[in-house]
Amino acid sequence: MIIKTNKLEEFINSLLEQMGVNNLDSQIISDIYIRSTLRNVGHHDIYDLPRRLEMLDKGVINKNPKINLNKSYGSIENYDGDNGLGEVCTSFILERAQKLADSNGIGFCSVYNSNHFLATAPYLEKSAEAGYFTLIWTSARPAIGWPGTRKKIIGNNPMGYSTPTNSDPMFLDISMAHDSVGNLKDKMEKEKQLSPLTAVDKEGNYTENPLEALEGGSLPIGGHKGVGLSILGELLTTVMGNGIMIDQKSKYESSKPDINFYDQMVIIIKPDVFMSEKEYLDRVDILTNFIRDKKSSLRIPGEKSNETKKRLKKEGIQLEMKLINTLNEWAVKYKMPFSL
Amino acid sequence: MIIKTNKLEEFINSLLEQMGVNNLDSQIISDIYIRSTLRNVGHHDIYDLPRRLEMLDKGVINKNPKINLNKSYGSIENYDGDNGLGEVCTSFILERAQKLADSNGIGFCSVYNSNHFLATAPYLEKSAEAGYFTLIWTSARPAIGWPGTRKKIIGNNPMGYSTPTNSDPMFLDISMAHDSVGNLKDKMEKEKQLSPLTAVDKEGNYTENPLEALEGGSLPIGGHKGVGLSILGELLTTVMGNGIMIDQKSKYESSKPDINFYDQMVIIIKPDVFMSEKEYLDRVDILTNFIRDKKSSLRIPGEKSNETKKRLKKEGIQLEMKLINTLNEWAVKYKMPFSL
Repeated sequence: MIIKTNKLEEFINSLLEQMGVNNLDSQIISDIYIRSTLRNVGHHDIYDLPRRLEMLDKGVINKNPKINLNKSYGSIENYDGDNGLGEVCTSFILERAQKLADSNGIGFCSVYNSNHFLATAPYLEKSAEAGYFTLIWTSARPAIGWPGTRKKIIGNNPMGYSTPTNSDPMFLDISMAHDSVGNLKDKMEKEKQLSPLTAVDKEGNYTENPLEALEGGSLPIGGHKGVGLSILGELLTTVMGNGIMIDQKSKYESSKPDINFYDQMVIIIKPDVFMSEKEYLDRVDILTNFIRDKKSSLRIPGEKSNETKKRLKKEGIQLEMKLINTLNEWAVKYKMPFSL
Repeated sequence: MIIKTNKLEEFINSLLEQMGVNNLDSQIISDIYIRSTLRNVGHHDIYDLPRRLEMLDKGVINKNPKINLNKSYGSIENYDGDNGLGEVCTSFILERAQKLADSNGIGFCSVYNSNHFLATAPYLEKSAEAGYFTLIWTSARPAIGWPGTRKKIIGNNPMGYSTPTNSDPMFLDISMAHDSVGNLKDKMEKEKQLSPLTAVDKEGNYTENPLEALEGGSLPIGGHKGVGLSILGELLTTVMGNGIMIDQKSKYESSKPDINFYDQMVIIIKPDVFMSEKEYLDRVDILTNFIRDKKSSLRIPGEKSNETKKRLKKEGIQLEMKLINTLNEWAVKYKMPFSL
């Protein structure tokens, strides 16, 4: 079924409010879900909402967290997310880091006792629209494998950055593994094989089977380079930011809810300090024009998402009936005045 | 010939002073060369010194640059490197970013009109020893290729990070391509083939020949992920920091000296703000102990370099006679009282 963006956003917002989420947070969350869903990648978007609703409903995640400052020093701040949704915690530190950057040119904020935040993309997009250069990392459950090793050695620790441009934001949203956990699940459902030498099974042997890769692990991009970049993410989030350490996370089975397993951090830089805003944006244009080459398959980061977004905003978003039914069941349960 | 570390450091220091480099800079430069050379990777170390000496001698690079503040705002600063050695410019902004981090928890400094700085490793190591968490990016000449594209699309823009630990510093020093330009040259000299699908020739076709890859380009790690990470480096250095833009750099042939083609940036974070220093270092230990797995080939970033360094500090450094002769010729030319 095709749903218009506005209607979907209003639905999410109202449903969250009916569940007891305060109005400010419900607006923030619905905006994040719409931004994610308009990328049309099929996971870490509206399809993740039912799981969040369940956790809010059961009280496993805090509906109205009091996000508290743990420690701060000049232009860096660390917060206790009070077991709030990752979407709320990350939006909070994004705004704080922007304020710090307004005052000091750069701001670095991190949050622990947070939860899964969908993806870096929606925050990156929002922050670029507000004129900031943004870097985001999140920690994750251990997911990356290594040839000859039986355990998952580290999370694929997604990261991303964005910059304003003279047109749509440029943003990159990637994990440090060849395939994210979401990608592996997608490929499993669609019965696709993985590329050779990009994953190992639970014994540490190479596999092209997505199910075996979920038990073993996707391999890091560039071998030791990707491992090193994942470690960077782990240091900037969990280690430095008071999160639950990786040895504790790895003790749980994947069937258990991974509450508080995700710590996020944001670095914001004001890009127009060293030159005028116009000059900065023109320089970004020079770079993208240089890279763009019509004869190759290369795209500028975010380009495809930006095109999809424009199309879906016009056409509406195609959602599976199973998802719509689930969301409408929640609407009935919480006495919503309307459904999808 | 085997040379003791102290002797080599004294030689570089004295030679630079004889050439007219001020004593403070000559000490900084010789320290950087010794740190690089003790990694024993065979390029971006003492073997790069003769080229630097030539450029200093000819006045192509400024022996005593006056590094000037261009713009600053709170905890971010941008400098004009006055066409100094990359080693001098980067050491300068490293120290400035450390001072900013002392005041504000985080500091971000960048420099343009700089030159090649060897590698991120020596700066990362030095900064970790001083107790800082450090991120460094440098821009570079376009070097990365893309299948089906005839031009080099972007620099491999090396980056790295380091953190203090309870023992030796942890540091990662990587380029965003499967092979750095230095690696390609090494493999060409040693007549080694490249791994499949990691490079293209000048027509954009896959190649395993290092010479063809030097004309075409090494491919980015993780495909579009590596491109995106290279763009990140370009934005943080050249674009944001007033460097010579990539379209200008690409107009020159590789035979021309690439003066002022390299812009560096440093982000320093005080890692012990959100918790005690002891707690932070112990948390880094928990992470590295988790990753370390004796059954796999996986090493902690910097581990191999740290081992090599200890060995070479004891045994001395094995240098080719050709290099020693060249360095001794410079010593004679500049009336050094001693030779290697």
